[in-house]
Amino acid sequence: MNCYELTKMTWEEVEASLKQVRLAIIPVGAHEQHGPHMVESCDAVLAERMAVKLGERLYPYAIITPTVNMGVSTHHLNFPGTISLKPTTLIMLLKDIVSSLKHHGIERFLFLNSHGGNQSTLDVAMNMITEEMNVEVYYAKTTASAKNAIAENVHSTLFGHSCEREISEALYLAPELIRADKLQRGDIQEPGRWTQLRPGKALKGFYRYEEMTKNGCIGDATKADFEIGRQIVEEALDNLSSEMMKLIKEDSKIL
Amino acid sequence: MNCYELTKMTWEEVEASLKQVRLAIIPVGAHEQHGPHMVESCDAVLAERMAVKLGERLYPYAIITPTVNMGVSTHHLNFPGTISLKPTTLIMLLKDIVSSLKHHGIERFLFLNSHGGNQSTLDVAMNMITEEMNVEVYYAKTTASAKNAIAENVHSTLFGHSCEREISEALYLAPELIRADKLQRGDIQEPGRWTQLRPGKALKGFYRYEEMTKNGCIGDATKADFEIGRQIVEEALDNLSSEMMKLIKEDSKIL
Amino acid sequence: MNCYELTKMTWEEVEASLKQVRLAIIPVGAHEQHGPHMVESCDAVLAERMAVKLGERLYPYAIITPTVNMGVSTHHLNFPGTISLKPTTLIMLLKDIVSSLKHHGIERFLFLNSHGGNQSTLDVAMNMITEEMNVEVYYAKTTASAKNAIAENVHSTLFGHSCEREISEALYLAPELIRADKLQRGDIQEPGRWTQLRPGKALKGFYRYEEMTKNGCIGDATKADFEIGRQIVEEALDNLSSEMMKLIKEDSKIL
Amino acid sequence: MNCYELTKMTWEEVEASLKQVRLAIIPVGAHEQHGPHMVESCDAVLAERMAVKLGERLYPYAIITPTVNMGVSTHHLNFPGTISLKPTTLIMLLKDIVSSLKHHGIERFLFLNSHGGNQSTLDVAMNMITEEMNVEVYYAKTTASAKNAIAENVHSTLFGHSCEREISEALYLAPELIRADKLQRGDIQEPGRWTQLRPGKALKGFYRYEEMTKNGCIGDATKADFEIGRQIVEEALDNLSSEMMKLIKEDSKIL
Amino acid sequence: MNCYELTKMTWEEVEASLKQVRLAIIPVGAHEQHGPHMVESCDAVLAERMAVKLGERLYPYAIITPTVNMGVSTHHLNFPGTISLKPTTLIMLLKDIVSSLKHHGIERFLFLNSHGGNQSTLDVAMNMITEEMNVEVYYAKTTASAKNAIAENVHSTLFGHSCEREISEALYLAPELIRADKLQRGDIQEPGRWTQLRPGKALKGFYRYEEMTKNGCIGDATKADFEIGRQIVEEALDNLSSEMMKLIKEDSKIL
Amino acid sequence: MNCYELTKMTWEEVEASLKQVRLAIIPVGAHEQHGPHMVESCDAVLAERMAVKLGERLYPYAIITPTVNMGVSTHHLNFPGTISLKPTTLIMLLKDIVSSLKHHGIERFLFLNSHGGNQSTLDVAMNMITEEMNVEVYYAKTTASAKNAIAENVHSTLFGHSCEREISEALYLAPELIRADKLQRGDIQEPGRWTQLRPGKALKGFYRYEEMTKNGCIGDATKADFEIGRQIVEEALDNLSSEMMKLIKEDSKIL
Repeated sequence: MNCYELTKMTWEEVEASLKQVRLAIIPVGAHEQHGPHMVESCDAVLAERMAVKLGERLYPYAIITPTVNMGVSTHHLNFPGTISLKPTTLIMLLKDIVSSLKHHGIERFLFLNSHGGNQSTLDVAMNMITEEMNVEVYYAKTTASAKNAIAENVHSTLFGHSCEREISEALYLAPELIRADKLQRGDIQEPGRWTQLRPGKALKGFYRYEEMTKNGCIGDATKADFEIGRQIVEEALDNLSSEMMKLIKEDSKIL
Repeated sequence: MNCYELTKMTWEEVEASLKQVRLAIIPVGAHEQHGPHMVESCDAVLAERMAVKLGERLYPYAIITPTVNMGVSTHHLNFPGTISLKPTTLIMLLKDIVSSLKHHGIERFLFLNSHGGNQSTLDVAMNMITEEMNVEVYYAKTTASAKNAIAENVHSTLFGHSCEREISEALYLAPELIRADKLQRGDIQEPGRWTQLRPGKALKGFYRYEEMTKNGCIGDATKADFEIGRQIVEEALDNLSSEMMKLIKEDSKIL
Repeated sequence: MNCYELTKMTWEEVEASLKQVRLAIIPVGAHEQHGPHMVESCDAVLAERMAVKLGERLYPYAIITPTVNMGVSTHHLNFPGTISLKPTTLIMLLKDIVSSLKHHGIERFLFLNSHGGNQSTLDVAMNMITEEMNVEVYYAKTTASAKNAIAENVHSTLFGHSCEREISEALYLAPELIRADKLQRGDIQEPGRWTQLRPGKALKGFYRYEEMTKNGCIGDATKADFEIGRQIVEEALDNLSSEMMKLIKEDSKIL
Repeated sequence: MNCYELTKMTWEEVEASLKQVRLAIIPVGAHEQHGPHMVESCDAVLAERMAVKLGERLYPYAIITPTVNMGVSTHHLNFPGTISLKPTTLIMLLKDIVSSLKHHGIERFLFLNSHGGNQSTLDVAMNMITEEMNVEVYYAKTTASAKNAIAENVHSTLFGHSCEREISEALYLAPELIRADKLQRGDIQEPGRWTQLRPGKALKGFYRYEEMTKNGCIGDATKADFEIGRQIVEEALDNLSSEMMKLIKEDSKIL
Repeated sequence: MNCYELTKMTWEEVEASLKQVRLAIIPVGAHEQHGPHMVESCDAVLAERMAVKLGERLYPYAIITPTVNMGVSTHHLNFPGTISLKPTTLIMLLKDIVSSLKHHGIERFLFLNSHGGNQSTLDVAMNMITEEMNVEVYYAKTTASAKNAIAENVHSTLFGHSCEREISEALYLAPELIRADKLQRGDIQEPGRWTQLRPGKALKGFYRYEEMTKNGCIGDATKADFEIGRQIVEEALDNLSSEMMKLIKEDSKIL
Repeated sequence: MNCYELTKMTWEEVEASLKQVRLAIIPVGAHEQHGPHMVESCDAVLAERMAVKLGERLYPYAIITPTVNMGVSTHHLNFPGTISLKPTTLIMLLKDIVSSLKHHGIERFLFLNSHGGNQSTLDVAMNMITEEMNVEVYYAKTTASAKNAIAENVHSTLFGHSCEREISEALYLAPELIRADKLQRGDIQEPGRWTQLRPGKALKGFYRYEEMTKNGCIGDATKADFEIGRQIVEEALDNLSSEMMKLIKEDSKIL
């Protein structure tokens, strides 16, 4: 299928594409530990693969930028290899990308983010960039909108990092990220302060990932499955593409 | 009831209190429009009142700092009187408060926030302050944990700003904030781009509040009620105090 | 008397007031120790009360913003409870306030400051904000212009912090700040390096407040008196209001 | 051949590798136009491929980090698609990467850079990071040290961007970057201010790339050749690996 | 007379001097218009000359650093040639100087400043540098302490910039700065907003120098005199040196 | 000869000169150790003298600003007396100078730099200032373009800091900088890590100057000679002035 990927285009090809493009999708990932069964580029690669698939659905209105391949991963820093950007660094990086693309005439942006730890920074970035540059900024967690497929297929009470959901997505999108012979459940540490700080609790708070899981993953990766991944990814793409297409079409210049 | 409020104490009284204090509660509000029936200091005042009530429940372990009386309100700026801080300003302000209090020996902090627009900035602040200062940081939306009372009493599908929930809280905590003769429903603007961007939707995105509501409020303030406010506030205080007390007690220095 | 206080107004009320408003008064205080007889919010509260009184005199030309309730108090940090902002934080905070209000059409600002330690930062802020935002900025120490009343009534050679002058002002403006049973003279530490660094000396230099006074106050608070406070405050208000009114009236839009 | 690539490793694998690793190689590229015959990710991809090849030669002493896939490309911004980071953003990004890896015990770093426009920023970054973090920092232009192979094979007087040298390197390292049917000479614009500002001239100065070349490339890409690329790349790798191995071995912990 | 001037010393000479040096004097000037009868480097040169004279008196305890030859001159910017630093730039510059000298073992600093427009920035710099670097910082206006000589010899009600006081100082310290054939009185513009904003008035506020004086000077330069300059300078040096010597001697390492 | 030197002009003289001026030359030096035979202000003084000589040749098109008399000298910091600015400080300083002069109508700038350690920072500054302020920025190493004179007269393989080249330049431009009785060769430390990091090597890297030379100089200062200095300086001035004059004349406003 067709997709405008900036990394794979010459400037003449970009110039031609810009006649139709109404949106830049900026894949935002992370470089962080994903337990013993997933390599550390997981989030960067999944964000990029999702961006391309979304770009295919939004063709010829979307163009995919290079991937932001590191993110805010402070809570994983005690696992070897994790690299973490300060939130202010990530914001400056996104500002520069948006500013450059605005120079080329693009005024609508989607940060397509695969890593939960980036969400609040992206929200702040969206706020600041909108104010300072007068552009339209959106962000989304890659597969968060696949509510049905997740509800049906993911049964761990605690999931969201190198779990059956993420491994399933990777089986569908990027199986090379997985050490299939190492798949294991999260080695959850209970009781623990972290149990008070999960989404939905009265308090939010910072905790190190090793407080929660000794092997760095949660959920049950052994339950991961290509078909589950396919359902989650495709449902998310359905949602993201239809929602974004509505926004693009409101723009009087199209249709 | 007893409560350590820094604004009402002399240094000698602070010195004495610090022998028992294990937590500083920093009330974080905003200065922004709240429709025709609520004054603009609403969030600052409610955060402060909640902080004092929580401080009473956590006495003698908590001390209440001066209130951060302005916040991130970019989306309200087109309504007269709204003041908005850049996220980076709010973060620096919180850093300085935490740093000063750490100098006095306090190492656990709760940002008690009444304004949704601050949440992502507080999350980023928590992340950065924890890393840079080696302290324990938490944050909470004042009454978000009152899930039962809200489910029973708040029936608008769209609520959360100068709605029946917030006005009810104010009737209980600070009725002077309300223009009782001006209570009205949100003047919702539909259809609109904002409908695609509310919590739970596939995309998050920045929109101006006037895109959503012409009078600056949502929900139905005419349904507000003191008793509803009491239930919401007290349920939230139950949750916040019991969760925080667990964290304080894990600290071997107590009990 | 009438006064436009932003914290007590709805957006519709602000909108109406802005037809006449020519000045925003930003009260700037501090949160710092004031000896054993005054609570730590002293400066924030006094700045706010003075601002309202000045706003009454300048009605309907002035509007009062929320109070900047913490300031630059580095020299008091070794007294428990003191919170100090970095000068750069205070400047950013003021920038954001001014920028927001300029968005609403206000172009003249007065930082009404009760705390000596803020003065140089306010001067720098005035300089930078004027340059960057093309607005008219003024600042004033709340009661510094009451030269006659001070000369007649304040007799300590060393005064200016929780002394008879400040306690008298508080007796008139905010008696709840005072621990009347604890009033005492400053416990001055002589000789000391600080004696070389007071206003009027050849050198200026940083010193900690405890180098100068063991109990955190100077002067003689036991000599404070409501009537002295009244005279100082009212003389200052006479001066501030008449000077500011001249500036407002030069503005061709008025009279 | 073996190479430690962080993006392809789990945390357990990283942990094991760190027992031997003495150097992190950070590939630094750019995202910028490369004329009609090369895609815009050229520099990012070539830096990454070179890093892996260098990592193979330095195995098991070197580990390769994720690629910095955008750089300082201000001078190319008028060609569609180019993205440029502010120098300060690139410096902050490198600081965060180095800081994270130092947390894991690595204290020697090589910024392996394929883009001339990054060199001065990397020099500044090296200076600042060394001072602030007490680590050992080096940087190198990927193939600049291949002096013999370049002298023998590259005959354009003006070369260095999407020229026969760079296309030859790509033919050897990443032929998918090339539009083989579009290969063309630089469309050089003479006379021009830029002729006074090339390396070796008395003055250095900023000029836009389109001042120098209308199609965005210089030199003569039609002369590019796999074998030339092989010679340049391998000579550079010989030099980089032997020089770096000397530095690693001076470190008493090895051999 | 002897004076340690860093600009005139080799590193070996500096090394020897540091055995006795207890203070670095940093001359801080400006580059700004001084009316038709004084060149624009006036403040930089006078600060430097005063620093050397003070260094002679404090020999061998003081060392003179290079001169900060530009300062905060926003209010003079509309006169051709004036260069103004942002306050934050001046602060960073001073931080770097202090930090470097602390590296060499110096822990006491005097910013010897000839330009009124720098004073509040120096106060802020002193505050921040003291906090961040744990050094002892002082600042002084070069001749402000010569109260007797000024009271006796300077009779203009408005003076302080290229007036009889400053020209007299220059006649004594650096007569080459003066255009003797151009000496003139300030061309004062009255009435004017500035009259409300001079020292001692109820309000402080930013005004452009051309609002106050058309030719850029105030006072009456035609009354300037070498002997007046001598008296002012020498009285100031008496005060500065005796005060500073007291501070140096308190330091137990001396005498 | 005539030269517009801002430090020696009144504002009226500047105003008159600006009718013809097309370029501001900003001398950029350093304050750092130069071995036992040269004082630490060497670079600042040489940059200033070169700027004046270049200004004479470009009269009446060039104006000389005050000298940036400190620079980036991290690598010399372990020699007593050296002062080093952070690169970001130097950039901010240059921004403020350029911004002020742009206010006066100047739009072309040359950073005339005598210190190698500043070059990359100047390159970054040029990049950022050009982008942000839309001015024309150039920079040059003072005598680097004197290739013939250097090739003929300088025979040390390692030279460039307080060597026969620099001392010769000083003999011609500023002999007061030299301790003629202390002239000596560099006390080179071999072998050493630095030998791998000199210009032309495969790797660039940070090293401390004392790693390379014990006495702080390189080359052979005893071979310095006034005539060599004259040839180097004059050849460089020939090149700089002719190149710059071409750029000035392209500007249609001239000739």
